[in-house]
Amino acid sequence: MTELATPLSSTARTRLGRKRDRAATDRAALHAILDEALVCHLGLVVDGAPVVLPTGYGRAGDTLYLHGSTGAASLRAAGAGTEVCVTVTLLDGIVYSRSVNNHSMNYRSAVIYGTPRELTERAEKLHGLRVLTDHLAPGSWEHAREVNAKEFAAVTVLALDLSEASVKMRSGAPADPPEDVRGVEAWAGVLPVHTTFGVPEPAPELAAETPVPAHVSGRKPAPGR
Amino acid sequence: MTELATPLSSTARTRLGRKRDRAATDRAALHAILDEALVCHLGLVVDGAPVVLPTGYGRAGDTLYLHGSTGAASLRAAGAGTEVCVTVTLLDGIVYSRSVNNHSMNYRSAVIYGTPRELTERAEKLHGLRVLTDHLAPGSWEHAREVNAKEFAAVTVLALDLSEASVKMRSGAPADPPEDVRGVEAWAGVLPVHTTFGVPEPAPELAAETPVPAHVSGRKPAPGR
Repeated sequence: MTELATPLSSTARTRLGRKRDRAATDRAALHAILDEALVCHLGLVVDGAPVVLPTGYGRAGDTLYLHGSTGAASLRAAGAGTEVCVTVTLLDGIVYSRSVNNHSMNYRSAVIYGTPRELTERAEKLHGLRVLTDHLAPGSWEHAREVNAKEFAAVTVLALDLSEASVKMRSGAPADPPEDVRGVEAWAGVLPVHTTFGVPEPAPELAAETPVPAHVSGRKPAPGR
Repeated sequence: MTELATPLSSTARTRLGRKRDRAATDRAALHAILDEALVCHLGLVVDGAPVVLPTGYGRAGDTLYLHGSTGAASLRAAGAGTEVCVTVTLLDGIVYSRSVNNHSMNYRSAVIYGTPRELTERAEKLHGLRVLTDHLAPGSWEHAREVNAKEFAAVTVLALDLSEASVKMRSGAPADPPEDVRGVEAWAGVLPVHTTFGVPEPAPELAAETPVPAHVSGRKPAPGR
């Protein structure tokens, strides 16, 4: 199971900065991971201890947007000059090897370090909310009621630069040593893991004949793939 | 989008401890979330800054097991009396509301705080490895080559008590205020998100007639559901 441990390393922290020749490839991979996943894990230090919380996000260019209620303590901390770590992980498969020890996962993950800034300028904050909505529910910004003044005031939007970020991934077949490939009679291979969308479930108050709009019914789990 | 911000709060930290009447329900929910998900996000404080890394895990009773190469710096830190936060999140659906602001996600998440201890006693460490394997790949412990002495020495196994843990979830239809239900002509409902397994992909060296064993071909994404 050693390979499973690969993500358990802090040495990738500045990978994008260090390996210049891989930077463009990594940058595209970083964007692809962020655009495909829906949930990130936001890490903060609160009273000296780590706190990891799941939340939504959105990306535009090399900026990641986060948001939350103005009453959320962790979000206030994140917006007040505190360093955060945002990690996004896509699980692609379970890797069955000839040995228990070489079992692994195929995955793609992005780790972003930085200090978010809170958006206070109206146009910039509205842009952030739009990016967040377009990521969570593409098409909803045009379809649903717009954000009113009270709602706009009650939400905090943070922007995090993607300058310090790293990407890790594993793909493909199990990596058994030759002696195991020859000498062990066990099945080996990959069980793919997929994320899919089910049949839309209309809210109970909707009239029965209300059509499901195309931005919901036609949504695909992995944009651009 | 206010509801999306619900997880962005540190107030749930001791929920299981505080609300005694909900403890049994929450304990069952905690176990169910941990048993269904495959990846956790491990949070640590390294040089004063948060680090969040994806990794595998396993659960037996009220103990969570983590593992990694003995060379992994973060894992060494986690095993050396450092407090960690382990978060597991299952995304169940995208909630489309009448207003952009009320869009949300249906999800189940578990947050565990504690200081893991490294397992050094042979039987206990082997048990931990088995729990980890049974979670990642049920049936592989019996099917694949067992862990040899060299591999056993090269892996670090950590045990984390589930005593300080909290569960958060959202399910069901959008929660639009009456004035939006009456006055906004937008589709509202939930787009379910599912995790599924694809067709097993045998390793290239396997003979073409090698059958896929039942523990792989019959595997279901959500045990017990």
